[in-house]
Amino acid sequence: MATFELVAECRETGARAGVLHTAHGDIKTPVFMPVGTQATVKGLTQRDLAEDLDVRVLLANTYHLFLRPGHEAIRRMGGLHRFMSWPRAILTDSGGYQVFSLSGLRKITDDGVTFQSHLNGDRHVFTPESTVDVQLALGSDIMMVLDECPEYPVSHEYARESMERTVAWARTGYAHYRRRTAETAAAQSLFPIVQGSMFPDLRRACTEQLVALEADGYAVGGLSVGEPRPLSLEMVEATGPILPRERPRYAMGVGMPEELPEYVARGIDMMDCVLPSRNARNGYLFTTQGRVIIKHTRYKEDQRPVDEHCGCYTCRNHSRAYLRHLYQAGEILYAALATRHNLTRYLDIMRQIRHAIVLGQFPKYLKAVRAVPVEVE
Amino acid sequence: MATFELVAECRETGARAGVLHTAHGDIKTPVFMPVGTQATVKGLTQRDLAEDLDVRVLLANTYHLFLRPGHEAIRRMGGLHRFMSWPRAILTDSGGYQVFSLSGLRKITDDGVTFQSHLNGDRHVFTPESTVDVQLALGSDIMMVLDECPEYPVSHEYARESMERTVAWARTGYAHYRRRTAETAAAQSLFPIVQGSMFPDLRRACTEQLVALEADGYAVGGLSVGEPRPLSLEMVEATGPILPRERPRYAMGVGMPEELPEYVARGIDMMDCVLPSRNARNGYLFTTQGRVIIKHTRYKEDQRPVDEHCGCYTCRNHSRAYLRHLYQAGEILYAALATRHNLTRYLDIMRQIRHAIVLGQFPKYLKAVRAVPVEVE
Repeated sequence: MATFELVAECRETGARAGVLHTAHGDIKTPVFMPVGTQATVKGLTQRDLAEDLDVRVLLANTYHLFLRPGHEAIRRMGGLHRFMSWPRAILTDSGGYQVFSLSGLRKITDDGVTFQSHLNGDRHVFTPESTVDVQLALGSDIMMVLDECPEYPVSHEYARESMERTVAWARTGYAHYRRRTAETAAAQSLFPIVQGSMFPDLRRACTEQLVALEADGYAVGGLSVGEPRPLSLEMVEATGPILPRERPRYAMGVGMPEELPEYVARGIDMMDCVLPSRNARNGYLFTTQGRVIIKHTRYKEDQRPVDEHCGCYTCRNHSRAYLRHLYQAGEILYAALATRHNLTRYLDIMRQIRHAIVLGQFPKYLKAVRAVPVEVE
Repeated sequence: MATFELVAECRETGARAGVLHTAHGDIKTPVFMPVGTQATVKGLTQRDLAEDLDVRVLLANTYHLFLRPGHEAIRRMGGLHRFMSWPRAILTDSGGYQVFSLSGLRKITDDGVTFQSHLNGDRHVFTPESTVDVQLALGSDIMMVLDECPEYPVSHEYARESMERTVAWARTGYAHYRRRTAETAAAQSLFPIVQGSMFPDLRRACTEQLVALEADGYAVGGLSVGEPRPLSLEMVEATGPILPRERPRYAMGVGMPEELPEYVARGIDMMDCVLPSRNARNGYLFTTQGRVIIKHTRYKEDQRPVDEHCGCYTCRNHSRAYLRHLYQAGEILYAALATRHNLTRYLDIMRQIRHAIVLGQFPKYLKAVRAVPVEVE
């Protein structure tokens, strides 16, 4: 199971530096986890991820792998690590978020959620028990409980009902997980997810009930669903004081580069987001100086790297002009080079954050990065 | 300029082993040149090509680079090698083949060919002189003269006219090339192209006239345009005895893996083809045992590598099941892994061929590979 070791804490903010020990290696926290939806981070090889980027933990999507190639097929082939040849840690979500994004195609009951595959329309059911089973079959190091992620905005009443369902599902999922792993030294951890929409009282109530599960770690879900940013941070602040200090805290689906230190300042240890990879493919590159929109004509003969302060393969070897050319030509290499750069940017930020925390200089760091403009040029 | 050194010749066939010396490194021949149409081999980084595959020479397409980003832009940025960060050799075609493939959009005169861009419909002209200028701007190590590549079949009369135009263009292009490079020690070589459709008498007449140009090397063009394979090989046979022994010979746009030794047996030193990379992306993988069509259901849980006898990154790390999953999911990584494998297969074949020639065992090798079935399973 995943165990967490606190290495340093910031005296002024809630920032923490730690190490998350898993059966597939140690992970320095705070950590950003690249998203490998379908057992691949789009555009990169596993070697690129391990050797170039030193990624220690990936996120994979249970919903997608459940549908294709199927969790039982993956189990028969020795689990997800072996299937995708990734010897380092993997976190899988519960599949709930994807299912709830299907809107018209799904139906929620107290027992779980019925949905139709976006691939072929086949009908399936996810229950708190079945998503644990699917993730046990995948063999991920960190599994997530099935939760309901309401859209934004919803009424306090709906948010409360939904949060209570999430808590009930967490209890059911946890009981099932403990039964299934009773005979084995469980190598896989299960994290419950705090919900409660944008209502601090519901977030607190949810957190209090989930803490009773004595989980290996806790997630804050239901963020980045369209709410204003200060609200997302406020929701994290509501949970922090209640969550056990000695367990890792995971903010799901966040965020923009400038938001990463903000979450860390509020006690978050783990984050994931499709933004660096998806924005890369769409032509948006993150740099130490802000954002570069690579298609702009001004880069046509720009021989500088995307970011002169970046040490990634892309910046060491290629110019903005070449990247722009590849982007305009729709070449695969563009996605590979751009993703590599954006992920490096995120991982660099996390390394800087951790370094600042360990040195006791996180407040200074935070002040400095808050002063950097978001847009370039 | 590119100079050719003969290392060994087969006594029974026309096979030759050599070294092609260029300003951007030495190339062991016979060589297969991966195609990097738009200044990238689709799906691979330049590091993959150099370090994993040990590619020594790439082909890039003048037509595509002329249209985007433009040869003058590339010249201003220090040439194609620098633009794409590829320090090894580059061969560029004349752009003629792409222009002639545009059919409805182009018009041939004795002076050259007028065509419309497939990107935006802009009207352009390629002349024997201008294509040399474009390639000089690109800075490729080996340039090709503008030729007319007739479709198959054409009448003897049309083929003769077309061949004579190709010879006239080669003379014009060569004269222009000699003028333009008179003051400099020309680092760039220019190869003329033998045409003549599928008529051996025209191929011979064309070759005789082109040999008078005393070029650094010669190409055989107009192959793989839909003709039966024995005919393509016959056309190569028609030119071999006339071409100077001490110059490299390049068969353009060939071929399937089983054809590579056949061309070498007929005195060919250089080949290029989009087949390994294009077929890879379309799900066709070449192996030592024949072809693997990766989408087949039988590979769903097949944990063997694509080819157990292959040492490429893909085969060392990934299963057929994983590749099939990536293919079905439309993931970028599929193209990257499949291309890497297919190109490795081609380069392995060329290495084996060269080894056999140097050891004096090429006839034995040829006999053995002719006995291997083309289809797997």
